[in-house]
Amino acid sequence: MPVSRGGALNHSRVTIAEVAEQAGVSVPTVSKVLNGRADVAGPTRERVRQAIAHSGYRKRKPAAPRRTGLIDLVLDRLDSFWAMEVLRGAEAEARRTDRQVVLGTSDNDDPDSRAWLDRLAARGTDGVVVVVGDQDPETTARLAALEAPVVLLDPVGGSDPAFATVGATNWAGAFSAVEHLTSLGHRRIGVISGPPRLSSSQQRVDGYRAALRRSGIAADEDLVRFGDFLVGGGHRGATALLDLPEPPTAIFAGSDMQAVGVYQEAARRGLRVPADLSVVGFDDISLCEYLRPSLSTVLQPLARMAAEAVRLALDGSGPDTDGRVPRLELATDLVVRESTAPPPP
Amino acid sequence: MPVSRGGALNHSRVTIAEVAEQAGVSVPTVSKVLNGRADVAGPTRERVRQAIAHSGYRKRKPAAPRRTGLIDLVLDRLDSFWAMEVLRGAEAEARRTDRQVVLGTSDNDDPDSRAWLDRLAARGTDGVVVVVGDQDPETTARLAALEAPVVLLDPVGGSDPAFATVGATNWAGAFSAVEHLTSLGHRRIGVISGPPRLSSSQQRVDGYRAALRRSGIAADEDLVRFGDFLVGGGHRGATALLDLPEPPTAIFAGSDMQAVGVYQEAARRGLRVPADLSVVGFDDISLCEYLRPSLSTVLQPLARMAAEAVRLALDGSGPDTDGRVPRLELATDLVVRESTAPPPP
Repeated sequence: MPVSRGGALNHSRVTIAEVAEQAGVSVPTVSKVLNGRADVAGPTRERVRQAIAHSGYRKRKPAAPRRTGLIDLVLDRLDSFWAMEVLRGAEAEARRTDRQVVLGTSDNDDPDSRAWLDRLAARGTDGVVVVVGDQDPETTARLAALEAPVVLLDPVGGSDPAFATVGATNWAGAFSAVEHLTSLGHRRIGVISGPPRLSSSQQRVDGYRAALRRSGIAADEDLVRFGDFLVGGGHRGATALLDLPEPPTAIFAGSDMQAVGVYQEAARRGLRVPADLSVVGFDDISLCEYLRPSLSTVLQPLARMAAEAVRLALDGSGPDTDGRVPRLELATDLVVRESTAPPPP
Repeated sequence: MPVSRGGALNHSRVTIAEVAEQAGVSVPTVSKVLNGRADVAGPTRERVRQAIAHSGYRKRKPAAPRRTGLIDLVLDRLDSFWAMEVLRGAEAEARRTDRQVVLGTSDNDDPDSRAWLDRLAARGTDGVVVVVGDQDPETTARLAALEAPVVLLDPVGGSDPAFATVGATNWAGAFSAVEHLTSLGHRRIGVISGPPRLSSSQQRVDGYRAALRRSGIAADEDLVRFGDFLVGGGHRGATALLDLPEPPTAIFAGSDMQAVGVYQEAARRGLRVPADLSVVGFDDISLCEYLRPSLSTVLQPLARMAAEAVRLALDGSGPDTDGRVPRLELATDLVVRESTAPPPP
């Protein structure tokens, strides 16, 4: 491959050798980073990544990538209620294209769990969909270096321009939840969002604020809490909110699991849902209809989002001519059940 | 391979040619059946299968099967609460052996869904774990013919001696559930089991009967109902039981989802659980603790069962010298929560 830069040949490709020279490493080391191998030290990998970014190096598309019939789906945990929805959607779309889903886990607490990246690089894949609540930078770097197309499902924020992403309309979903509460007459509404570092958490709080503004309700930062999207976070958030001198009459719980925590804390205090306290969740996991009272929530179409992510991975996750990768947001829907009612008189 | 039978050489192997002759088909046809290929007509396949069974033909183990790093997990549906438990256990065990789980579905309502068998045969696998509620004979025949080791998880009854199986102690689990109810003072106890064709359903009813006998309670066949292990079956069973001239004071619901149906019908009639009606489930899916009241149930260790099935598939699913394949039953545990209490006075 000819090494050439600038001048008349400025469309020709930057080579691995040039990247290696810029990074001050050997060509095989650059190659390892490009292929997502684990045996490159973190700082070296970072230097190579920067050299790749600065040089504008682009991997060649393999002329005819070998079809493996496999789609890799990587989740950080397999025990959440919504993981099954994601699996179901991904499996259906993979099957539609005569492929199968391979499960990977990327639990950050387990140092061995990132082995999926090694296996995947060795085995080959038709595409990778990563569902990560809390991706570490090392994983991100190695994902970016893979030959295979990578799509992030519901990413955790700061949309990395290297990846195509599929999410939901977090802002609009939160807006509809809170608008539902204001339309019932609530004026003092608390919110418990997810971890503040996640963009989905921030978007849900922004939707909450916008809905209050729309109804002319002044913001009160005491009513804004962040959790972990799990039962515990809902429980802690509800405790803080209901301990306020002027507690809310309704809580937008940010996730269905957090709504379960709100239910528990309400029950502990002898508050009835919805007579004393209205609660709205987010996600619409299957649990919602079995709760008592059944939970009003914002449906996030997880199965469809996963199917879209698989579709993108197989067909068009790459950058367009302007270098932009696709980013889809699927619409949410308000589902009104039994947990919301007008505020107590 | 020498063809020889009887006499001094009775330990030598039956050949494919002999099977083909017995079945009146060509050698390639026998080979197709042995390799799980779809392009053999049903009646022909059946004839070959019978010839294989009569002749005592055994496939040679490949000298060194290619390690694929993949374990195939086949479920009929991906939307049940307990499918996630199964996935979690299988994934953890696969990961422990540096493998990954490939998802397959075998929905009988979808004619395309059995394509997983073709893909699997073409791609190769280190082992197959099949979780089927309702396996059709065609699938069974093709599974039996695969080169790869096959293990059934919680099979549907009539334990096919061709397959290693992992189940739970259905009888003992039901016994412990009903013994818990009799120890609380209940004498009139209904049962709603699963579909009567499933051995797990029959075993749960047998455990129920045995526990009643142990307490000297006469059987009343009006109190025995069969369902579908889903919410609807529980609802219908509870309707029938509570419509009896002398309704039960407690119901062993056969599965947690059926217990949800019992809760619904009890609520519709204004019966309080457990003050008016005690309810025990089976499975201990994560839903149990979120129900109100939380559900007393029989824990079926689904994740551990799935892990055991993967372990067996990788290591020892084959027949012993007597031709018997392993069959494991993992112990259940009674989990007492809020849905059981002494009968109303």
